[in-house]
Amino acid sequence: MDPIESAGAGLSAGGDVFFILMGAILVFAMHSGFAFLEVGTVRHKNQVNALVKILADFAISTIAYFFVGYAVAYGVDFLVSAAELNGATEGSEYGPQGLSLVKFFFLLTFAAAIPAIISGGIAERARFWPQAMATAIIVGLVYPFFEGLVWNDNLGMQDMLEETFGAPFHDFAGSIVVHAVGGWLAFGAVLMLGRRNGRYTKEGKLVGFPPSSIPWLALGSWLLCMGWFGFNVMSAQSLESVSGLVALNSLLAMAGGIIASLVVGRNDPGFIHNGALAGLVAVCAGSDLMHPLGSLVVGAVAGALFVVMFEACQRRFKIDDVLGVWPLHGLCGLWGGIAAGIFGLTELGGLGGVSFLSQLVGSFAGVVYAGIAGFAVYGLLKAVVGIRLSAEEEHRGADLSIHQIGANPETEVSPGR
Amino acid sequence: MDPIESAGAGLSAGGDVFFILMGAILVFAMHSGFAFLEVGTVRHKNQVNALVKILADFAISTIAYFFVGYAVAYGVDFLVSAAELNGATEGSEYGPQGLSLVKFFFLLTFAAAIPAIISGGIAERARFWPQAMATAIIVGLVYPFFEGLVWNDNLGMQDMLEETFGAPFHDFAGSIVVHAVGGWLAFGAVLMLGRRNGRYTKEGKLVGFPPSSIPWLALGSWLLCMGWFGFNVMSAQSLESVSGLVALNSLLAMAGGIIASLVVGRNDPGFIHNGALAGLVAVCAGSDLMHPLGSLVVGAVAGALFVVMFEACQRRFKIDDVLGVWPLHGLCGLWGGIAAGIFGLTELGGLGGVSFLSQLVGSFAGVVYAGIAGFAVYGLLKAVVGIRLSAEEEHRGADLSIHQIGANPETEVSPGR
Amino acid sequence: MDPIESAGAGLSAGGDVFFILMGAILVFAMHSGFAFLEVGTVRHKNQVNALVKILADFAISTIAYFFVGYAVAYGVDFLVSAAELNGATEGSEYGPQGLSLVKFFFLLTFAAAIPAIISGGIAERARFWPQAMATAIIVGLVYPFFEGLVWNDNLGMQDMLEETFGAPFHDFAGSIVVHAVGGWLAFGAVLMLGRRNGRYTKEGKLVGFPPSSIPWLALGSWLLCMGWFGFNVMSAQSLESVSGLVALNSLLAMAGGIIASLVVGRNDPGFIHNGALAGLVAVCAGSDLMHPLGSLVVGAVAGALFVVMFEACQRRFKIDDVLGVWPLHGLCGLWGGIAAGIFGLTELGGLGGVSFLSQLVGSFAGVVYAGIAGFAVYGLLKAVVGIRLSAEEEHRGADLSIHQIGANPETEVSPGR
Repeated sequence: MDPIESAGAGLSAGGDVFFILMGAILVFAMHSGFAFLEVGTVRHKNQVNALVKILADFAISTIAYFFVGYAVAYGVDFLVSAAELNGATEGSEYGPQGLSLVKFFFLLTFAAAIPAIISGGIAERARFWPQAMATAIIVGLVYPFFEGLVWNDNLGMQDMLEETFGAPFHDFAGSIVVHAVGGWLAFGAVLMLGRRNGRYTKEGKLVGFPPSSIPWLALGSWLLCMGWFGFNVMSAQSLESVSGLVALNSLLAMAGGIIASLVVGRNDPGFIHNGALAGLVAVCAGSDLMHPLGSLVVGAVAGALFVVMFEACQRRFKIDDVLGVWPLHGLCGLWGGIAAGIFGLTELGGLGGVSFLSQLVGSFAGVVYAGIAGFAVYGLLKAVVGIRLSAEEEHRGADLSIHQIGANPETEVSPGR
Repeated sequence: MDPIESAGAGLSAGGDVFFILMGAILVFAMHSGFAFLEVGTVRHKNQVNALVKILADFAISTIAYFFVGYAVAYGVDFLVSAAELNGATEGSEYGPQGLSLVKFFFLLTFAAAIPAIISGGIAERARFWPQAMATAIIVGLVYPFFEGLVWNDNLGMQDMLEETFGAPFHDFAGSIVVHAVGGWLAFGAVLMLGRRNGRYTKEGKLVGFPPSSIPWLALGSWLLCMGWFGFNVMSAQSLESVSGLVALNSLLAMAGGIIASLVVGRNDPGFIHNGALAGLVAVCAGSDLMHPLGSLVVGAVAGALFVVMFEACQRRFKIDDVLGVWPLHGLCGLWGGIAAGIFGLTELGGLGGVSFLSQLVGSFAGVVYAGIAGFAVYGLLKAVVGIRLSAEEEHRGADLSIHQIGANPETEVSPGR
Repeated sequence: MDPIESAGAGLSAGGDVFFILMGAILVFAMHSGFAFLEVGTVRHKNQVNALVKILADFAISTIAYFFVGYAVAYGVDFLVSAAELNGATEGSEYGPQGLSLVKFFFLLTFAAAIPAIISGGIAERARFWPQAMATAIIVGLVYPFFEGLVWNDNLGMQDMLEETFGAPFHDFAGSIVVHAVGGWLAFGAVLMLGRRNGRYTKEGKLVGFPPSSIPWLALGSWLLCMGWFGFNVMSAQSLESVSGLVALNSLLAMAGGIIASLVVGRNDPGFIHNGALAGLVAVCAGSDLMHPLGSLVVGAVAGALFVVMFEACQRRFKIDDVLGVWPLHGLCGLWGGIAAGIFGLTELGGLGGVSFLSQLVGSFAGVVYAGIAGFAVYGLLKAVVGIRLSAEEEHRGADLSIHQIGANPETEVSPGR
């Protein structure tokens, strides 16, 4: 390289490192959003557990994805010298200035979202260490296997879809790969775990377990919304391919989700704060190719879908999914994967290059895979180590039972320590 | 374009998209700051309403600005194909890589600040849907009309000022366009709405309505401060014109506002956390051309001005502006618009290119326009649909009256649901 | 310069301004993290004081570093015209587009971390204005003197170390310069101030003062973690030298800190949320040259070290360091400074270019310097103006005693105002 080219490359790599890093930080911030959304939604006696679980799961995910998962998805490992990792040695296969390393960081924050999604469904009654094991298995193996199929063209699934339907399965920022997979894994986990004690009367009537704090719930939602723009826009993974359309589409889908959930949810604060997220879940897949008006519709449908299906879960299906992560991530994610095949079409103002049938097949592939995996992983753990707190522990609350301290220790009886 | 130029353009556009996107995310984060500042300042029975109002207003603002407001201000609409929007078609008038679309996102976060400012003034007693209507009218028409006069040279106002006084009206990041306009719109809204019941005794003595939570108030202030650096610095709207001076000036104005409000406000937590904001409001207009020492003075004056005028509002004028948004945004914004014409002068170490008289005229134009518009919009809504909760609803609190749920439902009686 | 070069320079400077600005904003956000970590850890009657102290200290630090400290460390002052500051005049020594000014902002956020660290140690019993004076002295003189020795090669310390041991003292992002210095200054402050009343029985037995709120504590920790990626990665201070390795190392050290503190701290929420910080404190120094596996070990050791030493402080040494800032920043920082000399070696997969002995000498130089300075500054203030609240004020709480208002005024008796 002559000096000028080298300088150019340096600048460009530096810009990309910066760009992807900011994406990683933003999605990392979303994890605090998951934590506080759960803190506000659960009962007071389970707030500490929500916080510790999310933070611990993030760390366990980091280890599992670093040592196993990233190799499963992308065939890349990190067991060479720091100089080679940083792209500074002759013939290094890693990008200059540690570009490959921030990509890992960015993609890890996606992978770690899976246990964070599940966490909200199994809240208030799950044992701690079995859930930590599930996190390791899921982030190390289950998630990256499907991730690699879609995002790294592993095993020829994408080629097959392209040959059959004219376009590969398109999931720009993970409506299916992250959200639907997370939501459907949670579906299995929630059913294997069973309902919280006292959640339904003997006659099967729902008993209200009201959220502990709307402000904490709202803070969680805001942190998720903020970080989501990194989740979506930085999925481009380089400045050369960044697209402002992704940002605008995310914005309009969020607005659609807010307004629809406000109206359908009749001004309920829990619904509107989750409705924003519903719109964002659904827009991920097609955010790079839909028209903003299409995104508005996709988000609005998702906001309404969340409210209706959350209520149906609680009242009709009697599924005790505490934060409603199956309707939110599982169903709105599924809708998003399919919607990319509709609103991405040029006929509807989109950029095109998608096939409705590829979207349908790819979306259901993710849902079926994750649904089965959820039952398998949690079923196995249930059989081998047990996944549920004892009735007495659950009654005392996960905070005192697992962490020996409550959320506001100064004003609470704090036994033990 | 030959390939190299095209690559260069691509990189540069990508950098600008990234830059403006981060600005938009930071100002979007400020909206959560508005929400939590209000949560902490109002009484507990109105916390949920603060949260839902800010989030809903943001979504409504998005729709109003997307479909109407942006066209009013800049003559740009989005009713062409996604490919053209993204600047990817031949002859597209939109910037490459969706540059025009992130600009919209960035400017929307400014527009949506207007109802968020008003929200703090009218808290605890306003009806929900009439306020939603006001948001749509203001963000769709009232704000963008003035925005376009100043920032898009619409109708020749800037030319006239330049011819008359030697320089156009300079408002780099919106001390007048955003803050004074928001604050003076709120002034009308607060007066049309009237004081909260019980706020003054029959003899006209102030009754203390103490804030519910200083930590939430402080979180709101911190989120606003963080985002403000995006509000100001990213107002450059391209990497080529970004200026570190804007960041340093914002920093020093904030420090000045903190210290002055700490001293004048005698260590009061509400004053110091709003004092930081006062400094930041005032520095917006001239942050790109004042000397850091000038900014320190401008911020300190604003911090003191806020404390004095907040007290005067409550005690002397008996204006029941709950968060003090008129002194904060209306008066400190006005001061900032004028101060840019003083501390921006080269004689005072500034970059020059401003005229004191243009600043005076432009600033008062904004104030008068918004003052009249505030009375008009809220007066109209008051006459036609009614803008205030009934006495009984107000007594119960906006949370239970409008949202059927309180901020901490687990520990509260939650009627209905 | 011909136009093209000029354009190129502009782009590059703009990119660096943006990069460093985002670092500054992220580290600025960490200050809110310090505030909320303290809010959650102290008793309820001292929450307001925590908030006001951190915000006021940040403003005072800004003034002290702007007028004095930055000149002490780097020989740069800001008393020239805004045009020259912005690099826009012929022969200006300041970087183009205000590059030098965002560097100041970035480094200020480091300097201001020192009083924020100390604040957590002296909580619940320190007088307000004497602490403000200590902040001014420390950020104006004490910190920048050592900062200049290490980061600006002042007084030849680095040359001497390089000649003696083959490499200068390496502290990429401040394990020693910021964290150990802050922690050891706090050590002196805590001892000069003495223990909180009632913290130990007459027989010397520890009395539990449980934290007021785990959610606020956790929010503080999350904000610190998020901002830390800016603290570390943006320490490169230009896009040309940014390195993704720094991000990955920070991530793995954090994960190591979380897991070790979770296990050693037996699921305690306070330990795990501080354990993440312990890992991040320790990785700063060598984050640019260690292998990710080395960083994982460094972080895990720090997480365990924090838990063990926090307990030892409280129970064995009977040092009443409220947030444990001496073990966290002082000891984990010291470990990080030394560890860079071990895990940075090429033999352990690192990038090399460090000397173990230089690290040892440099690290202990920082610790000894700050230890002495802490006793000197707080000893002087204690002798001259007094640094501690009266027993009655302490009993009432710093909130009512200093700020005349509690954290939740609506539900508390609020005397005076």
